[in-house]
Amino acid sequence: MAHQPRLYQSLHQLLHHTRVASLGTLGDDGAPMVSMVPFAIASPLSALVLHVSALAAHTGNMARHDAVSLLVMQPEVATEPVHALPRVTLLGHAETVLGDDTRRHAARVAYLARFPEAEPMTQLGDFQWVLVHVEQARQVAGFGAARSVGAAELLQVIRSDASR
Amino acid sequence: MAHQPRLYQSLHQLLHHTRVASLGTLGDDGAPMVSMVPFAIASPLSALVLHVSALAAHTGNMARHDAVSLLVMQPEVATEPVHALPRVTLLGHAETVLGDDTRRHAARVAYLARFPEAEPMTQLGDFQWVLVHVEQARQVAGFGAARSVGAAELLQVIRSDASR
Repeated sequence: MAHQPRLYQSLHQLLHHTRVASLGTLGDDGAPMVSMVPFAIASPLSALVLHVSALAAHTGNMARHDAVSLLVMQPEVATEPVHALPRVTLLGHAETVLGDDTRRHAARVAYLARFPEAEPMTQLGDFQWVLVHVEQARQVAGFGAARSVGAAELLQVIRSDASR
Repeated sequence: MAHQPRLYQSLHQLLHHTRVASLGTLGDDGAPMVSMVPFAIASPLSALVLHVSALAAHTGNMARHDAVSLLVMQPEVATEPVHALPRVTLLGHAETVLGDDTRRHAARVAYLARFPEAEPMTQLGDFQWVLVHVEQARQVAGFGAARSVGAAELLQVIRSDASR
């Protein structure tokens, strides 16, 4: 699988080394809403992990409508052109992890490996673990380098080690 | 208006000095989709300006459903914590500018002032100018510094000079 090594490598870099994503959810008025979420990769769960406040609008939106999108992009750098910034639009479904200690633990471990500073927030009762199961994606790796990415390759990237 | 100077200044900085936003649109399957868009501020039009390809999914989405959201965030920097990154979620409506030479010209001028390198793309027939009229926002300026922003203050920021 993944026979476009440069595009695969760019996708791997985005998912394993970018720490924030733009989360698109559906508001109760039927309009899209985009909010910032720190995210981690839970390779053993084949999913992305979010840690969201019960008070946040996106949390309610995902509870009502579980189809979500995440944009992960290379951060812009002052004076550098932005139109060809590597990025990927992920499409998938959000699942709040309730009452499953093994999976909650795996989500927590993955999240705190990336964000050790968030440990105090995980002690608060009004936060939830959410897994995002990614089903398809549209990747742009530069001018003229865009492609659709299927579930199999996305899972390969998500399950791979961050260093590879 | 705007009696929280630090929050106003952060909002001004985000809109006038960040060059890319995460655009949330509604797909034809009813699911949200988030994509990257370079954006500019067209102060004379009291709107944000996008330049989108007729071939892009977000363009079709906006044509079908004009409610959109834009997340503008301060880019993450390696090793710096991300949870309190300043950002703003804008909610508004997209309008494709067709057949109005004065407004098309104003949109083009604003966009090319920020992105002179995009001039060749504006010569291509399959791109469109889209204005985003912003109606409300949710701003986070740091830990414990979040607020809703109304249309009047948003317009004040959009109409203000980039240097102020």
